[in-house]
Amino acid sequence: MPKQRRSRGPDRDRGGKREAPQKPRQRARQAHTDWRADSNLALIYGFHSVREALRTGRRQLVRLHATKEAAERLSSEIAAAHVPLNIMSAQELSARLGAQAVHQGLLVEANALEAGDISDVAESRGTVLVLDQVTDPHNFGAILRTAAAFGVEALITTHRHSPEVSGVLVKAASGGLEHVQLINVTNLARALHTLGDYGFYRVGLDSEGPAPLDSLPVSTPLALVLGAEGHGLRRLTREKCDVLARLDLPGPIKSLNVSNACAIALALVTRALKSAE
Amino acid sequence: MPKQRRSRGPDRDRGGKREAPQKPRQRARQAHTDWRADSNLALIYGFHSVREALRTGRRQLVRLHATKEAAERLSSEIAAAHVPLNIMSAQELSARLGAQAVHQGLLVEANALEAGDISDVAESRGTVLVLDQVTDPHNFGAILRTAAAFGVEALITTHRHSPEVSGVLVKAASGGLEHVQLINVTNLARALHTLGDYGFYRVGLDSEGPAPLDSLPVSTPLALVLGAEGHGLRRLTREKCDVLARLDLPGPIKSLNVSNACAIALALVTRALKSAE
Repeated sequence: MPKQRRSRGPDRDRGGKREAPQKPRQRARQAHTDWRADSNLALIYGFHSVREALRTGRRQLVRLHATKEAAERLSSEIAAAHVPLNIMSAQELSARLGAQAVHQGLLVEANALEAGDISDVAESRGTVLVLDQVTDPHNFGAILRTAAAFGVEALITTHRHSPEVSGVLVKAASGGLEHVQLINVTNLARALHTLGDYGFYRVGLDSEGPAPLDSLPVSTPLALVLGAEGHGLRRLTREKCDVLARLDLPGPIKSLNVSNACAIALALVTRALKSAE
Repeated sequence: MPKQRRSRGPDRDRGGKREAPQKPRQRARQAHTDWRADSNLALIYGFHSVREALRTGRRQLVRLHATKEAAERLSSEIAAAHVPLNIMSAQELSARLGAQAVHQGLLVEANALEAGDISDVAESRGTVLVLDQVTDPHNFGAILRTAAAFGVEALITTHRHSPEVSGVLVKAASGGLEHVQLINVTNLARALHTLGDYGFYRVGLDSEGPAPLDSLPVSTPLALVLGAEGHGLRRLTREKCDVLARLDLPGPIKSLNVSNACAIALALVTRALKSAE
């Protein structure tokens, strides 16, 4: 389980949305806006995302809009979360969120989560992910979900060259945002240096890495560093890793989708850490 | 490496496109159409996809449209493939494929690949994937790419409840279509029965499976069976598996994106098969 995060009040976010009075159409287009924005309310939709927001209690929940059926499906979570419930039709939800949004009858307005700071992991004894310019929101979201599934504590990325925490990403994360602390840094090489000072073993995934990842002795705290598809790790990022490791791919194609590569890497290091216990 | 497939002539396809004379706008909207259609030409774009089409020689290549820069980048592959080259600007390619298509300066017109038949894997000693109603094209494409990276021979899926082999899927597959035989069946339970007759060990991935996948003795020929997110394997599919296995997820979220789950499963069985050699 991720360790408890420091609270910095409910008014800043990593998945938030500026909630000034707006016309419905404007709202819909902005659903789940930039976590970099100074926003204070987030719109979270979709079954898994809403369920995790209700369960974890990391956000202050303002109001839940749900269809009757969806509200029944989550009735115990809704009761436990003490959130005001507003029953509406699926059509009304779609009108608010836009026709593309797969809301599954659920939309919760919540105080936005804060983006963290590198010092949040100073005491960590677990695993963090470091993403070097991964910009695709589907991939970023899938990585967050898989990170939560493997109990990753934080995902560290740069302010620039990261996707907005918006509709597609939040939906793909499928509740992962409620469990993995997002940490936003200006300079990734400097952040890796700091992780080294904190005692993290920094493993960079690199197709040219000298050793296969699953042959590597690993230990916690562990920072797993992944680069963008095509480019891989930038030179400065690579130089700040303690070791570079590759995934052995026996087939004719020698590269993976970055979220698939991340999933394999997390499974392999989790396995290695478990057998080293 | 995947074994050689049976040839059934160049006039059928799994990634094809009907190439009757059309206005450019109509063409663009139809780029990469349904492999279930009786089509005979495919439009393949994007660096990895085009490079694999040039390299593997599984398709008869009709014409390559490329920017000068992209053609230089692939000059040796183009020369080896003996494909007529038509230099055009990136803008002209975008006008043909639509503004959304990330063509990276490369578009090849090629004879479409045929969809295979279950009997194509009768003699297999390798691994095949079986997908039970995975419909998202990003996921399906990423699965094809990862399958190619792990040397999977074929991907078996149902005619219905599968995505079109269209732009997003083909791009996400990143050349995987050139290496993994797509096999299209009407009834998945019957196909699994046939795989059993062929001697395949059928492993179904199921979050309620009694054993963790990485503790399971596996052997080839191996069929790895994955269900859709949310629904998992259907009852009849589950009943046709020799064993059900789960992925152990130590974190607070207990499910994965299906392409991420597939990637982890392939990595674990590849590792297990290698250590059993």
